Amino acid sequence: MYTDLNPGKRVLMGPGPSDVHPRVLKAMSTPLVGHLDPDFLTIMNETREMLKEVFRTKNELTIALSGTGSAGMEACLVNLLEPDDKAVVCINGLFAERMADIVKRCGAEPVILPTEWGNIVEPEEVKKVLEKTSRVKLLAIVHAETSTGVRQPLEEISRLTKEAGVLFVVDAVTSLAGIPVETDKWKVDAIYSGTQKCLSCPPGLAPVSFSDRAIQSIAQRTSPIRSWYLDIQMLQSYWGKERFYHHTAPINMVYALREALRLVLEEGLEERFYRHQLHSKALVAGLEAMGLKMIAPLEYRLPELNAVYIPEGIDDVTVRKALLNEYGIEIGGGLGKFKGKAWRIGLMGYSCSKANVMLFLSALENILKTEKYAIPEHGISAAAEFYRNEN
Amino acid sequence: MYTDLNPGKRVLMGPGPSDVHPRVLKAMSTPLVGHLDPDFLTIMNETREMLKEVFRTKNELTIALSGTGSAGMEACLVNLLEPDDKAVVCINGLFAERMADIVKRCGAEPVILPTEWGNIVEPEEVKKVLEKTSRVKLLAIVHAETSTGVRQPLEEISRLTKEAGVLFVVDAVTSLAGIPVETDKWKVDAIYSGTQKCLSCPPGLAPVSFSDRAIQSIAQRTSPIRSWYLDIQMLQSYWGKERFYHHTAPINMVYALREALRLVLEEGLEERFYRHQLHSKALVAGLEAMGLKMIAPLEYRLPELNAVYIPEGIDDVTVRKALLNEYGIEIGGGLGKFKGKAWRIGLMGYSCSKANVMLFLSALENILKTEKYAIPEHGISAAAEFYRNEN
Repeated sequence: MYTDLNPGKRVLMGPGPSDVHPRVLKAMSTPLVGHLDPDFLTIMNETREMLKEVFRTKNELTIALSGTGSAGMEACLVNLLEPDDKAVVCINGLFAERMADIVKRCGAEPVILPTEWGNIVEPEEVKKVLEKTSRVKLLAIVHAETSTGVRQPLEEISRLTKEAGVLFVVDAVTSLAGIPVETDKWKVDAIYSGTQKCLSCPPGLAPVSFSDRAIQSIAQRTSPIRSWYLDIQMLQSYWGKERFYHHTAPINMVYALREALRLVLEEGLEERFYRHQLHSKALVAGLEAMGLKMIAPLEYRLPELNAVYIPEGIDDVTVRKALLNEYGIEIGGGLGKFKGKAWRIGLMGYSCSKANVMLFLSALENILKTEKYAIPEHGISAAAEFYRNEN
Repeated sequence: MYTDLNPGKRVLMGPGPSDVHPRVLKAMSTPLVGHLDPDFLTIMNETREMLKEVFRTKNELTIALSGTGSAGMEACLVNLLEPDDKAVVCINGLFAERMADIVKRCGAEPVILPTEWGNIVEPEEVKKVLEKTSRVKLLAIVHAETSTGVRQPLEEISRLTKEAGVLFVVDAVTSLAGIPVETDKWKVDAIYSGTQKCLSCPPGLAPVSFSDRAIQSIAQRTSPIRSWYLDIQMLQSYWGKERFYHHTAPINMVYALREALRLVLEEGLEERFYRHQLHSKALVAGLEAMGLKMIAPLEYRLPELNAVYIPEGIDDVTVRKALLNEYGIEIGGGLGKFKGKAWRIGLMGYSCSKANVMLFLSALENILKTEKYAIPEHGISAAAEFYRNEN
């Protein structure tokens, strides 16, 4: 027979999941009520209202889908796209590539705007592609690219989509509750996220929000939505006033998300964004003091996902294994062209703390020294000095 | 601001979710490791092995999808069907109707075999439809129809699909771990379930299993699988030896499922099936003593989902509200043609106990008396007598 569940103790500083606050774990283990129970309907309503605050939107169609962030991506595209539609996909990392794959499965045609991984997508390029392509239904872009640590500015690109009469779809998986996400101000038409990043909730739900323009566009479809499970019209009737049975919501995941959202709003969004900036800057001060180089330029760097080049002569897996086995610290390896060449250090939600920054820097320094890497300066000293100066 | 999470205390005797064992809730609230952590990979492997035991299959492709039971339904159909394929859908309740809907969204053509709700699908009828329809890709049927409480025998229908060279797809959402599910013996090609029924785990995962025949059929597709999120080839690489990153698994839901499966196997499948039979018989003895009439004939009655006609002159919602508000008991109302005419009383997994049977019968009797229903005989006396005779 199998033993009691006993996974190792971890400090989650990878690209997600992040550490989960004990209050969220406790809420998640609350005994269940039925998924159409009056008490659960209240909990769903409260969760929607808090999601609207975090997305900074008035969109009524703001719910948590019963799948992970990737289900959110699929939901946005499968509901908006019909066969033979064109979708401009701005690709500067792994997750936008996935979008293009999904566009094809919807029977639509992806019009790829390629940008080198690690760079931002330039509005000038977006303008060109929108000008030269006819009958574009939507433009999809990643706000916080988890594979490169790059923050994509969205204001200007949003303006261009509106000028072109194109729906604006945004991946906010790694940005939501870590850096400002302005769904309404940026006139986003469909936006999705995951729970296991800066919301610091276990993975399993995909917060999404659809604008009225998006809902109208879906209502005018001439072909059926290719997914029943992610059919946003049916999901709206389930989460909305009608309470029309669709599927059985993952009760305990909703309990967890409600509590995670409560923690976010108790802290305050602006305070939370500041905390992510603060600890990321301290981490970067430490890494740079040790001679490491960040991938993303300062201006477009995500505080919650710090992608850094691995120093020459240092083996990726050896270091990550030592971090995990000796310290219980998980960080992420590189993806795609950064495989073996970069680490991705997450400081997301509950994982984003001074204690974690200092623990990680000291662990990394010890391991790099064991690997005969000559450290120019102590990372922890530089980070500690940064913190002192901030006070 | 929002209050602490505080849903009412419930005894879940509806069509699911069922009550969850404290050990499962405790496992679910274990702090997270990463979704590619060596410890999590072990947990995924153990979960797969236990799922294989519960499905009674050697299928290597036996995993838990990151969605609820309906996602399992969609996954089986979207992976197997291509545009212009034909799928025979045997409909004798709500959930098979949903299958037909999904078949259409796959671009395939559903060939409906209609049967009155509450009856079983007759093999003779299946034979006829398979004989007169050419180029059928698969036949889909519900094993335990949650809308009617009917158990569909599958052996003969399986044989007919094999004769016709048609893939055999089975909905085991409400049957798995409640009544025997013989995936290999019945030569099922794709089968799906949910976690919140007889497995008594919170909703959020869909156990599925695909035969080698199904995998071969998928490998021969000429069009892409319409869902990225439910693409079983990619999911196989994630759960399999390759450990190829697909999406982030819902860590804590897998913790919960592992513990729920452990409980099932500790009890023993045969013992668990016996327990469901025992308490259902006691419940039915009580209901019939009180003058109520079951919907499904004895031979095809599901022990885990007891659908019973509401006595004449009694209002559905009044009774269910009183059960919920006065006793904390949830049962299900009727669906479709049984709306307002039937109750669905679940005895699933951890909810299936003598204590719950007796509590429910006494609660129902008190409420029916308040509603001026003349009870011929005490339900609790009949149930108690049944239990005494069984010992």
